[in-house]
Amino acid sequence: MTFVERLDGFVEGSGSLLCVGLDPQDAADAAAAERVCAEIVDATLASACAYKANIAFFEQFGSRGYAALERLRNRIPAERVYIVDAKRGDIPNTSRAYARALFDVLGADAVTVNPLLGQDAVAPFLDREDCGIFILARTSNQGAADLLDELLASGLRLHERIVELGGRWDPGGRIGFVVGATDPESVAATRRAAPSAPLLLPGVGAQGADLEEAVRAGLDERGRGLLVNVSRAVATAPEGPARAAAELRTRIDAAREAVARP
Amino acid sequence: MTFVERLDGFVEGSGSLLCVGLDPQDAADAAAAERVCAEIVDATLASACAYKANIAFFEQFGSRGYAALERLRNRIPAERVYIVDAKRGDIPNTSRAYARALFDVLGADAVTVNPLLGQDAVAPFLDREDCGIFILARTSNQGAADLLDELLASGLRLHERIVELGGRWDPGGRIGFVVGATDPESVAATRRAAPSAPLLLPGVGAQGADLEEAVRAGLDERGRGLLVNVSRAVATAPEGPARAAAELRTRIDAAREAVARP
Repeated sequence: MTFVERLDGFVEGSGSLLCVGLDPQDAADAAAAERVCAEIVDATLASACAYKANIAFFEQFGSRGYAALERLRNRIPAERVYIVDAKRGDIPNTSRAYARALFDVLGADAVTVNPLLGQDAVAPFLDREDCGIFILARTSNQGAADLLDELLASGLRLHERIVELGGRWDPGGRIGFVVGATDPESVAATRRAAPSAPLLLPGVGAQGADLEEAVRAGLDERGRGLLVNVSRAVATAPEGPARAAAELRTRIDAAREAVARP
Repeated sequence: MTFVERLDGFVEGSGSLLCVGLDPQDAADAAAAERVCAEIVDATLASACAYKANIAFFEQFGSRGYAALERLRNRIPAERVYIVDAKRGDIPNTSRAYARALFDVLGADAVTVNPLLGQDAVAPFLDREDCGIFILARTSNQGAADLLDELLASGLRLHERIVELGGRWDPGGRIGFVVGATDPESVAATRRAAPSAPLLLPGVGAQGADLEEAVRAGLDERGRGLLVNVSRAVATAPEGPARAAAELRTRIDAAREAVARP
């Protein structure tokens, strides 16, 4: 089964498009990072289709943080997608080592990949049929405009060229794209250029994106093909992660319904 | 003292432009990776100005590999530049966590940074005055042509635009560039566009670049501003790392001399 087929199953099984981010940026140490993330996973299982761990917030605690992330994997049920947000991408022998770290050691179902170094930098992340990658296309930060919005001589923006190339590099059902929910126009453009690729949308919540608009722009023909990632707005919600995630799921569902029956 | 001033001191002190890569890609486990790298460091101290550890080849062994890399730092004398080749770059809060991991936990003097996400992704790596970064401009792999060679509407190639922006982002003496020695034309173009920026040149040895040509293309006006990285050709040399590094240093010195007294 390809990653995209598995992802369909995860969405079907959970009935949700919500991806909960595990970003323990304010944890005091590795043990606190692990505890906080485990609590968020346990509290949000009923509402989440996927979890996305940001490896930087574990690496900041060195080998202890890395070990905490290794253990965290066991907390996430096999019925949920587990994404490691690592944004790696390097020359082929190095990308192969990163792929071993992320898929084999950390147990990711999917990882985020930086495409700057081209096809041979991305290819080593594609040799596990049931695993997938989300290639950075148009990220949610302000600086994304500096290079990703560059106009090419061909008339495309760089982020559009990345989506074009990503489509060609896909051996079948393994490549999706990261597009910031903060930029619904880019979400819609990516969906047009890649009708059946899964999209991972960060930027909802703390980064201020309009959830409903992003969902409308990103759904595929079948009303899915989308993971909406929310990190801080779940982790730090005054009402607690369980209620915050449930409310987000309800809003995503309503936006899906509105598209299905306009 | 800025990183570039410190780098001048490292070059002066060692009298060398050779950077020895620590890439234990074939090690069986973390202990072997640590042992192999420590042996290479000890054997090449007389010939090297800098060491560059590729973090992927430690991460492939998970938290044990990360711990090995933490310990390896102590093996490298304070009189040598210690570069961690990590190619990170993410939204600002995440880049800040990576900077903590690389500079504070792993003790890097300099790190490689992927600029795709723009200025705010790079900035968190610049807030330690005595530390530096090498921004990926034109890498040594075949896939570098896919995006980094893209022609922009402005007439620049993407890698030239990266060098232009990198120059603007530098608060002073902290930003250099990675340019594959496999592409001497890009090395020369980067040197023209950034006359005083340090260049880190991978690709000599296993990747087949012409060492002398790369040195000629990359030296700055003062006959330095350059680190020539060699990994596999030192680590796996039949004559041993000590003699391989000494010979490489001699060749780099000869190329410098030839430029100084044509």
